[in-house]
Amino acid sequence: MVSYVVYGRGCFNQLDEILAPQRKGKSPMIFLVDHYFEQKPLVARIPLRDHDKIIFADVSHEPKTKQVDALAQALKQEFGDVSGVIGIGGGSVMDLSKAVSLMMTNPGSSADYQGWDLVKYPGVYKAGIPTLSGTGAEVSRTTVLTGPTRKLGMNSDFTPFDQILLDPELIANVPANQRFYTGMDCYIHCIESLTGTFLNEFSKSYGEKALSLCQEVFLGDGQWGPEQDDKLMMASYAGGMSIAYSQVGVAHAVSYGLGYLLGTHHGIGNCIVFDKLEDYYPQGVREFKQMVEKNGIEIPQQITRGLSEEQFDSMINVSLGMKPLWENALGPDWEKKMTREKLRTLYGKL
Amino acid sequence: MVSYVVYGRGCFNQLDEILAPQRKGKSPMIFLVDHYFEQKPLVARIPLRDHDKIIFADVSHEPKTKQVDALAQALKQEFGDVSGVIGIGGGSVMDLSKAVSLMMTNPGSSADYQGWDLVKYPGVYKAGIPTLSGTGAEVSRTTVLTGPTRKLGMNSDFTPFDQILLDPELIANVPANQRFYTGMDCYIHCIESLTGTFLNEFSKSYGEKALSLCQEVFLGDGQWGPEQDDKLMMASYAGGMSIAYSQVGVAHAVSYGLGYLLGTHHGIGNCIVFDKLEDYYPQGVREFKQMVEKNGIEIPQQITRGLSEEQFDSMINVSLGMKPLWENALGPDWEKKMTREKLRTLYGKL
Repeated sequence: MVSYVVYGRGCFNQLDEILAPQRKGKSPMIFLVDHYFEQKPLVARIPLRDHDKIIFADVSHEPKTKQVDALAQALKQEFGDVSGVIGIGGGSVMDLSKAVSLMMTNPGSSADYQGWDLVKYPGVYKAGIPTLSGTGAEVSRTTVLTGPTRKLGMNSDFTPFDQILLDPELIANVPANQRFYTGMDCYIHCIESLTGTFLNEFSKSYGEKALSLCQEVFLGDGQWGPEQDDKLMMASYAGGMSIAYSQVGVAHAVSYGLGYLLGTHHGIGNCIVFDKLEDYYPQGVREFKQMVEKNGIEIPQQITRGLSEEQFDSMINVSLGMKPLWENALGPDWEKKMTREKLRTLYGKL
Repeated sequence: MVSYVVYGRGCFNQLDEILAPQRKGKSPMIFLVDHYFEQKPLVARIPLRDHDKIIFADVSHEPKTKQVDALAQALKQEFGDVSGVIGIGGGSVMDLSKAVSLMMTNPGSSADYQGWDLVKYPGVYKAGIPTLSGTGAEVSRTTVLTGPTRKLGMNSDFTPFDQILLDPELIANVPANQRFYTGMDCYIHCIESLTGTFLNEFSKSYGEKALSLCQEVFLGDGQWGPEQDDKLMMASYAGGMSIAYSQVGVAHAVSYGLGYLLGTHHGIGNCIVFDKLEDYYPQGVREFKQMVEKNGIEIPQQITRGLSEEQFDSMINVSLGMKPLWENALGPDWEKKMTREKLRTLYGKL
C-alpha cells in the first residue's frame, strides 16, 4: 500500500517540503504532468529546484509500454539517475508515472513486466498527485499499459506510489462531463464488486463507503462545490482500496473490447456499456441513469454502428478473455450464461 | 501508513511465507505474544525457524517505557541483532511491539521519544497481528506508553507497522465483555471525532464507516458469529485510519484521569466515562446504552467512591491537561465550558 498519504485542501503547497528529504544529491525530481496543464497556473506552483524537470505527458491515448520505455530511456540518457518521478494528472498520468519510476531501475521493456509480480526491483521514489478523481489509480498496485500484445498492468508490490498528495482544490475545475465519466469509473467498480461473487469484508467496507460518497455527490441536492470535491476525492481513494480483494464485472469486461478496437477511454467506455446493463445490474443501472440525468450528461449512443462482423468478433474475443471478471459477475458457470451471441447483441446496442 | 495489509479468514497460516523475505541471515524473529495465549493452541501455530523466540508479554497493565527498554535491552544482549518483532495480541501488545522495534535501533530510553517526531531511526522490521479489535493500534502511528513523567506515545513516521495481518478467526473466542469494551474504544472514538471541531473528509469517511460497522455488530439481529468478527476487525482498522486527521474528546480526556490514578484500562475506562456523558453526546450515549443492554454488559459503577479530594484533584489536573481533546469537543473557549467544579461533579458520578 501507499506508505504516505497527505489529504487536505491546499496541501499541494507542502510539496516542496515533502520532496526535500527524498532528494539524492543533485539528481533531479521529474514532474510528469498531464499536457492539459501546459500554460495553466498550476505549473508555476510546482516547486522546482536545481535540475528538476517538468515533462508534459500526452495522455490523449491511454499509456503504452512504448511510451513508458521512451520516457525512462530519455531520463537515463539526460540525467543518469533521478531522485524521483512525481505524477500530476488523471489516472493515465498516475499509471505512466508509476511505470516510468519502475523502468528507471528494472532492465528491458515495461512490456516484460505486464502481469503479476514480475517486477524485480523497487523503482525510484514516486509520488502521485491526482487532478481527476475516480479511477483509484492513485492507490492501486498496478499500472494499466497497452503493450505490443496485450493491455495489462505491471501488478507488483513495487508498483504503488511511495507518497500521494490528495488536495481537493486540484479537482475543482474539472469539466462536468470529464468529472462524471471519471467519477463513474468508481461508481461502476463499486456496483460490480459489491454484487460480485469475489468479495471480503475489507473490500466490502471500502466499496460501500465509496458507493455512498458517489451517491452523495452525484445525487445530492444543490450545486457542485468544495464539499463535493472533498467527497469525490475520498470516493476515488476508497474505491481504489476496495480493489485489493475484489473484482470488477460485466461493464469492465465489455468495455475492454471497446477500448481495444476503438480506443474508447476507460471512463466513458464504462459509462457507454453500463448504460445498457439493466439485465445484469438492475438497481445500479437505474441509479446510474438518475445520475446521468441529474448531472445533465449525455452518454454517447450507437458507437458500434457500421462496424463489420469481423470487428464485432474481435471485441467479443477480447471481452471473453477476461475470465475472472465474468466469473465474478456471473459465477463459475458464466460461459453458459454469456454466449458469443448474447455478447454480440449487447455490443450491437452500444 | 502500514505498507502491507493482509486481510482474510485463515491468513495467519501465511505468516511463515510473509516473514521469509524479511529474515536477515540467522537473526531471529521475535514473537511478542499476549500472555493470555500461554498454553493456548495459537502458540503452536507460530512459524518458528532457527533461533526465533516467543516472548509472552504481561499486559495486565498498559505498556510502560521501562518495560519497553528492558525488552529491547534483553534482545540486544541475547541476539545482538534481530530480524524483526512480531506482535500478537491486543492494543497493548501492538504498542509494545512497535516500541520495542524502534528501541532496537534508537539509542537511550523510549521515554526520550515520547512526543511527536522525536524518533531518529527506523526500527527493525515489525508486524502486527491483532487478536482483539477496536483500539486501532494496528494501524496507528503512535504507541501509548506510560513513562516516568507522562503517558504519551512515540508518534512518528517510523512507528507504524511494516505489515499487519488481519485474520478475523483470531478474534473469534474473545470473551463478550472484553470484546465489548475494546469495540467501544472504536465506537466512542467515532462519536467523539465525528461530532468534534477537528475533522476533514478523510477522517470523516473512515469514521463513518467504522461507526456503521460498530452499529451493525453491536445492535444487529442475531447472535455473534464470523460475520460480526469480520466487521469488527474492519471497524477497528477504519477507526484507526480515521485518527489521522481527527481528535478524540470528552470521554478520552476524562478517562485519562482514571487511568492515571486508578490504572483503569483504556477500553473499560472509556465505557465508564461515556456512560455518563449524555450532556455532551446525547445521541451517542443513548445508542451506547442500547448496545450495553443488547449485549448484556455491565458497566462498572461508583468506581470513584471514597476517593480523597486530593485524588480527585489529581485526576482533574491530568484531564484538563489534554487541551486538544477539550478544544475538539467544546471549541476554542472550552475552558469556560468545562470548569474544575463541573469536572469534579462528573468524576464523582463515575
